[in-house]
Amino acid sequence: MNAPEYKINGFFAAAVSAGIKKNNGLDLGLIACKEATTAAGVFTRNKVRAAPVVLTERHISGGQARAVVANAGCANACTGAPGMEDALETADLFADSLNAPREEILVASTGVIGARLDMEKIRAAVPGLVRSLSEEGLPGFARAIMTTDSFPKLSSFEGRLQERPFKIVGIAKGAGMIMPDMATLLGFVLTDITISPSALKKVLSQTTDETFNRITVDGDTSTNDTLIAMASGTAGNREPAGPDLEEFRRGLFHVMDELAVMMVRDGEGASLVVHVKVRGAASADDAHRAARTVANSNLVKTAFCGRDANWGRILAALGRSDIRMQEDRVDISIDDILIVKGGLSRGADAEKAAEAVMREKDALDLVIDLHQGDHKDRVVTCDLTKEYIDINASYRT
Amino acid sequence: MNAPEYKINGFFAAAVSAGIKKNNGLDLGLIACKEATTAAGVFTRNKVRAAPVVLTERHISGGQARAVVANAGCANACTGAPGMEDALETADLFADSLNAPREEILVASTGVIGARLDMEKIRAAVPGLVRSLSEEGLPGFARAIMTTDSFPKLSSFEGRLQERPFKIVGIAKGAGMIMPDMATLLGFVLTDITISPSALKKVLSQTTDETFNRITVDGDTSTNDTLIAMASGTAGNREPAGPDLEEFRRGLFHVMDELAVMMVRDGEGASLVVHVKVRGAASADDAHRAARTVANSNLVKTAFCGRDANWGRILAALGRSDIRMQEDRVDISIDDILIVKGGLSRGADAEKAAEAVMREKDALDLVIDLHQGDHKDRVVTCDLTKEYIDINASYRT
Repeated sequence: MNAPEYKINGFFAAAVSAGIKKNNGLDLGLIACKEATTAAGVFTRNKVRAAPVVLTERHISGGQARAVVANAGCANACTGAPGMEDALETADLFADSLNAPREEILVASTGVIGARLDMEKIRAAVPGLVRSLSEEGLPGFARAIMTTDSFPKLSSFEGRLQERPFKIVGIAKGAGMIMPDMATLLGFVLTDITISPSALKKVLSQTTDETFNRITVDGDTSTNDTLIAMASGTAGNREPAGPDLEEFRRGLFHVMDELAVMMVRDGEGASLVVHVKVRGAASADDAHRAARTVANSNLVKTAFCGRDANWGRILAALGRSDIRMQEDRVDISIDDILIVKGGLSRGADAEKAAEAVMREKDALDLVIDLHQGDHKDRVVTCDLTKEYIDINASYRT
Repeated sequence: MNAPEYKINGFFAAAVSAGIKKNNGLDLGLIACKEATTAAGVFTRNKVRAAPVVLTERHISGGQARAVVANAGCANACTGAPGMEDALETADLFADSLNAPREEILVASTGVIGARLDMEKIRAAVPGLVRSLSEEGLPGFARAIMTTDSFPKLSSFEGRLQERPFKIVGIAKGAGMIMPDMATLLGFVLTDITISPSALKKVLSQTTDETFNRITVDGDTSTNDTLIAMASGTAGNREPAGPDLEEFRRGLFHVMDELAVMMVRDGEGASLVVHVKVRGAASADDAHRAARTVANSNLVKTAFCGRDANWGRILAALGRSDIRMQEDRVDISIDDILIVKGGLSRGADAEKAAEAVMREKDALDLVIDLHQGDHKDRVVTCDLTKEYIDINASYRT
């Protein structure tokens, strides 16, 4: 990992092995600024919300944060009042150590649901973690938030705003319980620009909808989804608006889209990334619903696992997705190979060619044209494999 | 299989191996009456509808049928106008052979989507099939409609109506693409009572909603779901109403519920049947939605595969199901072992006891009490296993 790529002005990070994960890996990470800085967040829409989600949403409501602490190995979800006490104590511990008000500390947790955080281990880890904060710490932080992820997920972008360089670095973890509406994902996006909390929140929400909310691994939504953006304001720009804000949005999209696709690529057991692209829908809602239904179909996902161009299952999923459609207008392609025209197979040769592409590549486009209108959308998914079952049948053992 | 149990007055059946399935098994079945009899049907709500579904819905609209012919191995779905020609020719072939109008012949197909029926094989099979019609033919018919099913599914009920005995025999196939709103299932329910087409249709629809529409294997809905009821009128009763109609409904529920649970038990790769029972919901819709969301969650289903009492995933599924709920009111039991009280774990001992039950039994109740109101519902599901992936990754090969 190219460390300079993931350095960003105004942010310091560190990670330690606190002993929360069973495997002694890094499991507690901290990102901190020298003083309170602009912050915004997006959180799970699940009605069951982990204690750190509730606390962090409250703390970030003022648009300011000094630091974010995240752990893997324990989600601190479904833990009731004691779980909230643990989240509060975690914030207090770092507030004391960083000499900041409790409200400026954000907390995030991911891992097993229903288990309590081992606060003794957290308490013991705080001094070392704060002491080792450094500008080179972000790749370690990315490792500390991994659960069943097989690789750390970082992305960066460099652009220019008002003649000055600016940067964005994003970090995320994904792997399971991944589906539109924010999943078991923790995401942290850092930038050095100056931007108001309200503008940051707006751009973050919009970009989340276009990226993190357009991926699915298993259709399950988690209790802990948390996405935090922080802006250190060291780039020296004036408050961006118009084309400037658009340039920042472009950079944020780049970073978040890259992280989102990484999450699918690392989806539990996934061997193939499929970009489900729906065109020609009668409405934006139809386009989204069609793409999401196909992307979540276990039968479509197992067909991709078997590298089987089983378009009948795709048509069947479209048919139950409650969209306006006519079977005899639907075209389906795998990359640029048209396998269905007007709802009918283009023959065994086209299917064989598509299956050859499926075997050769580790990411491809499934393009569906409904020929009903001019709306389009996409959802990124992966195949459903036996490894997914292995991982999830034994997750807590 | 106890053949007398599945004999019913007024119906004759037969099955042959026409060569549509690759394995030379029985794949074409016929149920016929001596003359046209009362009939009603329920069909897939998928917008992609196989040719036999379209044709049979049209033919049964008059409330009369003489015979139903069903094949496995080819769904005749997504086959366009030529597929409709094939369905029509199939009806014509049997109409000629049975000396009945085409409109009295119902057709049903299940198997691979997108492939044409081999009409030469159907034509060749008709005379032998009609010749071998017998009162003992229903168990063979049940075998002929199997695809990935591992056992034939029959159920029977005997009751009394107006002091006279009556009988119901049901036959179904299931296995994959199983989810509320009728799935890849073909179902045939035969009774010897006299009943009007409209009363039969009403009782059939209501009972379908309580049974076949309350099961799920993989959340996918098929293009071919067809449920046909026929009443031969040989039992000698008067048109049932009030308590008489209720007695028939009770028998129909018994048969269809037994078939529905058999379909889940034989769900692709399933090793455990789970009756998801939701109580205390604020509305009937909430109860249904909660049960269905939990029953379709891949993470809940893989946890059952691993015999892991992972209640956090159950709470997380409830939380995304868009129902009225408060986390701290939810109770969860496995059979009669309470594992979650007021949203919190009752401890490792309770979970271990529940896991022992999961290992010992092949069917159990997952009881969720929301404590929000007095509505309840249930959906029957199964675990998600590696065998499901094996079956569906290689279905067409």
